[in-house]
Amino acid sequence: MSDDIRTGEIAGSLPEATDAGIYFIGRIRTPWQTRADCPRRGSPDGPICRIEIDTRWADALLGLADHPRIQVLYWMHQARRDLLVQVPRHSGKIAGTFALRSPVRPNPIASSMVDLAGIEGTTVLVRGLDCLDGTPLVDLKPAPKG
Amino acid sequence: MSDDIRTGEIAGSLPEATDAGIYFIGRIRTPWQTRADCPRRGSPDGPICRIEIDTRWADALLGLADHPRIQVLYWMHQARRDLLVQVPRHSGKIAGTFALRSPVRPNPIASSMVDLAGIEGTTVLVRGLDCLDGTPLVDLKPAPKG
Repeated sequence: MSDDIRTGEIAGSLPEATDAGIYFIGRIRTPWQTRADCPRRGSPDGPICRIEIDTRWADALLGLADHPRIQVLYWMHQARRDLLVQVPRHSGKIAGTFALRSPVRPNPIASSMVDLAGIEGTTVLVRGLDCLDGTPLVDLKPAPKG
Repeated sequence: MSDDIRTGEIAGSLPEATDAGIYFIGRIRTPWQTRADCPRRGSPDGPICRIEIDTRWADALLGLADHPRIQVLYWMHQARRDLLVQVPRHSGKIAGTFALRSPVRPNPIASSMVDLAGIEGTTVLVRGLDCLDGTPLVDLKPAPKG
């Protein structure tokens, strides 16, 4: 919620209530403590990051080690949700929220494809993330084939 | 919630409360009225499906037409959320929920990459979906590059 609005950006009003609820199923540990520290895009050459799954879900990891490539969904908890039109700093070009992969969106869910580097108990080690340390985890699944 | 549990499947207990809320930002119209009707996997040769965005978000579509390939996140509203270990009918092999792309998962969010076929007002036409008619939409964004 820390972002100011930039010239050309348009905020809308959010609905009064949400329609469904998300469980945070774990936390992602990365080397990046602020949004300015985060790389713009995760790289397979990047550092190993730790996805710490809550022990409640331990059994759900059965067989994950067989999948070298994993899709990670996470919740971009520091992003405002009400911008309809944005002017990203890196491009300076005006665009609708759904034409951007910006964290600022009605439902701040990110999707990243990462390489599995190992599993230690309920911690999944991966390369290729670019998110803040402490980011809430929403889902893990094998990357789609093909 | 209609699914019975199969031999070998394990249900867990869900947390007492959710941690974040999702807004349904529209609905997806497809030719498939039941889960048995849905194709196992969307195809670029499949029928055109209509993603109807709530008019509240109309401005957020600005510039989406420039992206031939779009990522669609949606909410698999008919799936139970408590299975940790599953035995999918198509494989018969036991696997943890996070080692499957099954709709049954703590947060039933699907991710599909689709081809943009057109935009008519606040309706986005795409090919490549495989979900039920009436599925709630969670997000639209350009497919990641590369």
